[in-house]
Amino acid sequence: MKYSELVKMLEEVVGIPIFAVLGKLKDNLIFLATTEGEVNISALTSGKVAKLTKSPIASSARPKSNSDFIPFVRDVERGKEIHAIYTVNLKGEEFEVFSPNLRVTSLAYDGKRIAFTGSSQTETSLYLIEGDGKVHKLFKIPPFSFVTDINDKWITGFGVLKGNPRSQEFFLADLNGNIEILTPKDGSFTYAYYLMGNKVYLISDFENPGESFWIYIYNIEGKTYDKVQFPFKDIYGYNPVELYYDPEDSLIIAKKDGESKLFDNGKLVNTPRGTISGATKLGNYIFFSHSSLTSPYKVYRLNSEGKIEVVVNNKDLGIGEAEFIKLKSDNIEVPTWVIKSKTPGITVIYVHGGPWGEVDNSWNLLISPLILAGYNIIAPNFRGSTGYGSKFMFMDIGDPGGGDLRDVIKARDYAIESGIATKVGIMGYSYGGYMTLLAVGKEAEKWDFGIAGASVADWVEMYDLSDSMFKEFMRILFNGKNKELMKERSPITYVKNVKVPLCIIHSQNDSRTPLSPVMRYVQELHKEGKSFELHVILNLGHAIYKISDAIDILLPALIFLKKLESQWTV
Amino acid sequence: MKYSELVKMLEEVVGIPIFAVLGKLKDNLIFLATTEGEVNISALTSGKVAKLTKSPIASSARPKSNSDFIPFVRDVERGKEIHAIYTVNLKGEEFEVFSPNLRVTSLAYDGKRIAFTGSSQTETSLYLIEGDGKVHKLFKIPPFSFVTDINDKWITGFGVLKGNPRSQEFFLADLNGNIEILTPKDGSFTYAYYLMGNKVYLISDFENPGESFWIYIYNIEGKTYDKVQFPFKDIYGYNPVELYYDPEDSLIIAKKDGESKLFDNGKLVNTPRGTISGATKLGNYIFFSHSSLTSPYKVYRLNSEGKIEVVVNNKDLGIGEAEFIKLKSDNIEVPTWVIKSKTPGITVIYVHGGPWGEVDNSWNLLISPLILAGYNIIAPNFRGSTGYGSKFMFMDIGDPGGGDLRDVIKARDYAIESGIATKVGIMGYSYGGYMTLLAVGKEAEKWDFGIAGASVADWVEMYDLSDSMFKEFMRILFNGKNKELMKERSPITYVKNVKVPLCIIHSQNDSRTPLSPVMRYVQELHKEGKSFELHVILNLGHAIYKISDAIDILLPALIFLKKLESQWTV
Repeated sequence: MKYSELVKMLEEVVGIPIFAVLGKLKDNLIFLATTEGEVNISALTSGKVAKLTKSPIASSARPKSNSDFIPFVRDVERGKEIHAIYTVNLKGEEFEVFSPNLRVTSLAYDGKRIAFTGSSQTETSLYLIEGDGKVHKLFKIPPFSFVTDINDKWITGFGVLKGNPRSQEFFLADLNGNIEILTPKDGSFTYAYYLMGNKVYLISDFENPGESFWIYIYNIEGKTYDKVQFPFKDIYGYNPVELYYDPEDSLIIAKKDGESKLFDNGKLVNTPRGTISGATKLGNYIFFSHSSLTSPYKVYRLNSEGKIEVVVNNKDLGIGEAEFIKLKSDNIEVPTWVIKSKTPGITVIYVHGGPWGEVDNSWNLLISPLILAGYNIIAPNFRGSTGYGSKFMFMDIGDPGGGDLRDVIKARDYAIESGIATKVGIMGYSYGGYMTLLAVGKEAEKWDFGIAGASVADWVEMYDLSDSMFKEFMRILFNGKNKELMKERSPITYVKNVKVPLCIIHSQNDSRTPLSPVMRYVQELHKEGKSFELHVILNLGHAIYKISDAIDILLPALIFLKKLESQWTV
Repeated sequence: MKYSELVKMLEEVVGIPIFAVLGKLKDNLIFLATTEGEVNISALTSGKVAKLTKSPIASSARPKSNSDFIPFVRDVERGKEIHAIYTVNLKGEEFEVFSPNLRVTSLAYDGKRIAFTGSSQTETSLYLIEGDGKVHKLFKIPPFSFVTDINDKWITGFGVLKGNPRSQEFFLADLNGNIEILTPKDGSFTYAYYLMGNKVYLISDFENPGESFWIYIYNIEGKTYDKVQFPFKDIYGYNPVELYYDPEDSLIIAKKDGESKLFDNGKLVNTPRGTISGATKLGNYIFFSHSSLTSPYKVYRLNSEGKIEVVVNNKDLGIGEAEFIKLKSDNIEVPTWVIKSKTPGITVIYVHGGPWGEVDNSWNLLISPLILAGYNIIAPNFRGSTGYGSKFMFMDIGDPGGGDLRDVIKARDYAIESGIATKVGIMGYSYGGYMTLLAVGKEAEKWDFGIAGASVADWVEMYDLSDSMFKEFMRILFNGKNKELMKERSPITYVKNVKVPLCIIHSQNDSRTPLSPVMRYVQELHKEGKSFELHVILNLGHAIYKISDAIDILLPALIFLKKLESQWTV
C-alpha cells in the first residue's frame, strides 16, 4: 500500500461522521455530529439535517425540549481548552454569551439561565449566568466536580466532593450559591444529572456497592431517596451494570459487557447489536443513534410497533467481526475486544484513554483505520475501565501503571499465544499513550513497536503544569499527591530500557497531557540513541474537533507502521 | 487538494529518478541514480540499465575506466553517517572492504588501492587500504580536507590546509604518508582532483582571484604549474566561472549564471539548456546526464555529428518556466531563480543549503513538489553561494546569517513588490533551515510562515556536538571559533520575536545539524506560546538515501502549507 492509498483510506474512514443524539428542541431532533469536517450541533427537522453551529464546538449542554436554543462551548485558544460559551438556535444563529478565560468543564441550562464549572490554574468554581447576561461566581467547589442541571430554584451536579477518591457525591445549590453536599450512602458512587421541580434524578451504586448502578429520585423537600420503578420489567431481567435514564421520555440506555440496550418504560425495544450513543422521543417515535466497532454511526427511528428505520445514514466499510473475550489477569477477568484483519499478522494492542473510559462495541476513530490498514486489534478493558461497575473502575486508584499494565501485558501475551500476532505493538492516546510509553519501558521485551498519542511521560512535571481540575484528577488517580509513586510510574524513569521503535504524536497546545514532559522524554530517548519519531501538531490540543485534526494524529501512526512493515517483510 | 491527492503528487514527483553520470568501467557507463526507490550505482551496458548496488549507498568514488569495480560507502548507523566501505563490480556483486567506524568524507581508488578521509569526534585522518586489504592510517590532516585521487605513487586532494578560511590548498602525499601542502599562489582557491602519472590536475582561481577558475597541471617532478590549453577555442569565449575537467576524455563541464555547457577539447557541444550533472566518452559517443529546474534528469548520448539521443529517459511533468533574475542587495547582485505556479499566490522563498551550494537550473527534489502543489518559488543564491566565483562565496565567511540574510530578505521583498506573492514564507534544508529559523526570528515581520528542515538552532551547542570535520566547517564559516558571533547568529536567541507558524522537520540521527539544539529551540517556542509543528523522523540522518526518506521530509511541509492555505482562504 503506497502512502497515497493509505491516506485515501484514512480520509475516507475518518470522514465517516459520528452521531450522538442529544435530545430535542421543540420538535427537532438535536444531535452531535462530525459532518462537514468538524464537531457540530445538528438538527433533524422534518426529515432534513441542518448543521447549526458554524465552526467546531467543544461540547454542549443537554438540550431542553421546551427551549429554542442550546448553549455550547468552543475552544478559543488554539486547542488549550480555554473556552467561550455560546448559544445557537434552530436557525443556526450563534450568540457569544460569555468568555470566562477558563476551562469550562461542564455546562447546563434551563432555557433562561446557564450554570457552568470553570477551572483555572488555582481553582474550580461554579458560575451562574442569568437571563440578563449577568455572571456570578457562586462558589469554589472541589475541582473534580461537574454541573449537570439547573432550574428556577436549584443547581445540581456531582463530583469527588468529600475527598475520597473511591466515592462520588452529588451537590445541590440554590441560585444564591448555598451549596449542600449529599449522598444516599457514604462511600457510594453517585451521579446527579437531572432536575425536575424539587426532584433530583440520581444514578448510584449505593444499593449494590461497586457492582451495578440504579436510578433514584432525591426529594429535596423530604430529603428522601426513592428507587425509580418501571411498569415493564425487561430492564430488571437485563441486570445492567451501567445506565442512563431520561425521566422526561422514560427511556433507559442500559449497558453491560461493552454493549447497550434501549428500554422504554422498562420495556426492551428493538435496536441493533452495539452501542447506543443517545436516544429521545419525538412524536410517536423513539430516535436513537447507534454504532458498533464494525459499523459506523447511524441515526434510527423506531415506531410503536418496533419497526426500525434509518433516518441519518452512513457509509458501511465492511470491517469484519468484533469478538468479545475475557482474559484472566491476576484474579480478575479483563473484558477484551478482538478484531482480526489479517491473522496471523501485525497486531496492535490498543489501550483506551481515561483511564476511566472503555473500548465498547461502538465505532472507534482510532481503531477502524488500523483495521482497514490491515492490522489486528486487541483492545483490553484493563482494570480501571468504566462499563464494569465502580469496583472494577476503582482498581486503578492508587495503582495507575500497575495492575492495569499487567492486564495490558496479558492482552499482548494472548496476541502471541493465540497465534493472532506475528509482530505485536502497543498504541494508545492520552492514558493509552501513557500506558504505551510505560509498557515499552517497563516491559521492554514484550513489544515490537509503540505508538503513543497525547501521552504522559512524567506525572510529576505534568502535575506542576496542570490546572486545578487536572491536578485533582491526578490526586484521585494516585490516591493523594504521592510524588514517589508518580515518579515510579512515569515512563521517563524507564527510558534506558526501551528496545523498540516509538512513534510519539503530541499536540502542541495540549493542556491535559502537556507537551513539555514529552519533549524531555524524547530528549532522553535521543541521548540514549533509541529509535523514535516525534510529531508535534500545530495549533491543536488534547481534544479533536476536526476531521483534519484526526488525520494529523493518525497519519504519522499509519505511516510509521507501514515503514516498520516494509522493514519486516524485506 | 485533499491530502491523498497531495501525497500522490509527492510520490510521483519524488519517484522521478535523479541521474548523474560518474564515468565508466571498461565499456560500461556508470552513473548514480535514484531508481528503485534508493540512491544506487547503476550501469548502462549495451543499452540496458542495471542497478549494481543492493541497498542505498551514501557516495561513491570516481570510477576508473580501466577497472572492473568501484568503491562506495554506505551508512551503517541509521543515518548517523558512520560509514563502511564496499566495492561493487559490474555483475552487481558487493564486497565489504572496511568498516572504520568513522564519517568517511571522501574516497578515491586506482583499481588496486583505496584512499579515504575519515572524521571522528577528535580528528580527521587520511587512510590507505592496500590491495591486500591492509589498512594504514597515513596521517592526520586539517579536518576540512578531501582526498580525490590515488595512483601507484601518489595521493592527492584539497582542503583548507593552511588555516586561512578564504583560501584552499592541495596536498600531495606518497603512499608512505609523507605529505606536502601546495598551492599555485598563497591565498588562492585551488582544487586538486585528478592524478595522471606525475601530473596533478588542478582547478584554481589563482590567475583571476575570486572571479573565475581555470584548469592547471602541477608537474610533481618539475614543481611547475602549467595552464591547460585546448585546440578548440569555444571555451575561451564562454568565460566560465566554475568548471570541471576530465583529462582522460578532454571534456569540460563549464558553469556560469546557474547553467552549464559541455566542451569537447574546448569545442562547445550541443546540450539542452540547464545543468549537466556528469559526462564521459564511450566509443564514438559523449554520454551526459542533464536536467533543469523544470525538466527531470535524463541521460543522453551525443554522436560526433552533434546528434543527441536520450538513452535513459524520465517522465516530464510540465512544470512552467524558470526565470533567472539578479536582485540588488547592498552593493551586490543576487542571482535568483523564479518559478511561478499561481501568480499572485502563496510564495516560498527557498533557501539552499551549504551555505556553499546553489540553486542552479537543475531538477530540485525540494522545489519541484512545491511548484506542483501550486506555490511560487523564489530561490536566491545569496552571498556565500557557489557558482559565482570564490569572492562571492567568501562573503559568508565571518558573517553567516548577516549579509546572506539581507539577500534573502531582498528576495522576500521582491516577492511582494512584484505582485507574485499574496502570502510569503521561507523554507530551506540544512543551512537553508538555519536561515529559515533565523529569518523568522530576526526579521519576524517579513513572513507568513517558515518551514525549516535539518536546521541549525544554536551554533554553540552544535559546535560542541560536532565531529572534527564539522567543527572545522564552523571555524571556517565563523572565521575562527567565535562564540559571541555564534550566539548572536543563532535562531535560539530570537525565539521571543517569532510571529508566524513554523513547521520544523528534523531527522533523529542527523550528525551534521544535530537534533538536540532544535529540540531546545522547540521547547522555547512552546514556552513562549508560539504556533509550531515538529516532525522528528525515525532512523534517518542529514542525508537522504531513499525516496521514502524524501517523502518523510516533504510530506509534513506540504501538509503544513495546505493547512495554512485552508485557513487563509476561509
